Amino acid sequence: MTEKKILVISGTHGNELNPIWGVNKFKNLNRDSSKLRSFEFTIGNPKAVQAGLRYVDVDLNRSFNNFHNLTNKNSYEVNRAKFLQNEYGFLGIKACSTAIDLHTTTSGMGSSIVLYGRREKDFCLAAVLQSKFGLPIYLHEKDNNQTGFLVEAWPCGLVIEIGPVAQNHYDSRIIERFLIILDFLGDLINNLKNKIVYLPEELSVFVHQNSIDYPRNKNLEINALIHPSRINQDWKVLNSGDPLFLNFQDEVIVYNGEDDVYPVFIGEAAYREKNIAMSFTKKEIIKCKQKWIDDLINHLVT
Amino acid sequence: MTEKKILVISGTHGNELNPIWGVNKFKNLNRDSSKLRSFEFTIGNPKAVQAGLRYVDVDLNRSFNNFHNLTNKNSYEVNRAKFLQNEYGFLGIKACSTAIDLHTTTSGMGSSIVLYGRREKDFCLAAVLQSKFGLPIYLHEKDNNQTGFLVEAWPCGLVIEIGPVAQNHYDSRIIERFLIILDFLGDLINNLKNKIVYLPEELSVFVHQNSIDYPRNKNLEINALIHPSRINQDWKVLNSGDPLFLNFQDEVIVYNGEDDVYPVFIGEAAYREKNIAMSFTKKEIIKCKQKWIDDLINHLVT
Repeated sequence: MTEKKILVISGTHGNELNPIWGVNKFKNLNRDSSKLRSFEFTIGNPKAVQAGLRYVDVDLNRSFNNFHNLTNKNSYEVNRAKFLQNEYGFLGIKACSTAIDLHTTTSGMGSSIVLYGRREKDFCLAAVLQSKFGLPIYLHEKDNNQTGFLVEAWPCGLVIEIGPVAQNHYDSRIIERFLIILDFLGDLINNLKNKIVYLPEELSVFVHQNSIDYPRNKNLEINALIHPSRINQDWKVLNSGDPLFLNFQDEVIVYNGEDDVYPVFIGEAAYREKNIAMSFTKKEIIKCKQKWIDDLINHLVT
Repeated sequence: MTEKKILVISGTHGNELNPIWGVNKFKNLNRDSSKLRSFEFTIGNPKAVQAGLRYVDVDLNRSFNNFHNLTNKNSYEVNRAKFLQNEYGFLGIKACSTAIDLHTTTSGMGSSIVLYGRREKDFCLAAVLQSKFGLPIYLHEKDNNQTGFLVEAWPCGLVIEIGPVAQNHYDSRIIERFLIILDFLGDLINNLKNKIVYLPEELSVFVHQNSIDYPRNKNLEINALIHPSRINQDWKVLNSGDPLFLNFQDEVIVYNGEDDVYPVFIGEAAYREKNIAMSFTKKEIIKCKQKWIDDLINHLVT
């Protein structure tokens, strides 16, 4: 039996420094242990890291389906996406079965998991992490404006997203949280083989519905910001009539949509350019199947 | 009697968005009031704002003494510094007596005032603000590595520095704090003339001593970060033996200098490129002189 490695990617966005530091520290602390054995490590976007920017030409984490897109095909990031798949893809030179992409957010989401679509192996991995650490899960699906995410290019994979932390800013408390998760993942394959991984009965997910933009004036300039009472309230229920934005006239703009939505990525700095003030989710419970564990073992150990 | 205006500058650093928003909102909310009468408003570095960067060529807020510096003299920012002085300087086209430069920091300093050198008019203005709002004052002086600050080019001026907030990130709670201070300054000249401004007996300042860099390896790469227990502890006393950094080996690096120093700008994201992990200050009490008020009135109303 050989294990197929888990690819841990940091620096997919070049201005998110804490995952890179966390990975380097993890490697250094575990130099003589078995924890590193399951992993390949890589920097997603080294040129953007060097420049301290989210990306150089286009967002790498939206570039994994654009290989035939005429406008982007010569961009640094699309070429980098191809390289990463050739090198670390499921059939790559250093074949990895699974991708764990480490990110930070400027929004107050705490530690969370992001999934793309409804893949059972992702559900299994997320359920195991949720039951261990109580992490909320954001299930991103059915959004035609946002596609080409890195982990979708592997048959199993998820994003670990931790915040709030500024871009280009180190925070040892954020790094500590990445280390705890890496430490757990470092034992995962062994623990799966030894049948000591606990899969809960169900999985609680926040399912993406839609994103909303900031209010804008007729010149399309933003003219209202996230209401102070809504800042750092990610994962908390929003009902019709609740304050949402505050404009230049100090007028409160309230939410007037469907009840029981849960906003995430509230005020995320990197999403202004994508015309996203926050994304709305709905809660859903997904039943776990015990066979997921065997499928995951078969996926990781062949 | 004519009043010499107070110049309010936002966007001196192009990735500090909240002061710009705050000023626009202040102008909008006070369109029909007398509060705007005392002010000229300008954006410090419009090209950097456009680009979402701290600066384009060099830091504008270090460019007000570099006019003869050969390496920088053709930079966008040095030319912009000249323009701002020609336009809004004490002898400029739209002459301003005083400069208030609005900044944000990624460090947890709250709302504070920064002064450059020991100018009595600055002390007076800062003392009035401190007694009104309880703001801590950072007195920057005797640092040959850091010169050419914008407000030094006016005979009176200070920086309002508010944090923590990420670069390129809007936060309506931070904006609210700028509005409160602008609101007070909008009435200041009138209140000075009407002798209803309170000058306290003394002024408490944190005087700059020196800055320290992050620990680095032999390749000059940072290899330890601000210790978790020191994050957001700006203005709080640091004594010999206190934890300061945490390295890759999870070893705590303690402070072993003089007791009773007060760090500020702890972990400021923009200062990494300046090799500054934090700056150390010492507390000092300065006696206020009642004549400062008359001098300030004479300065503002001629």
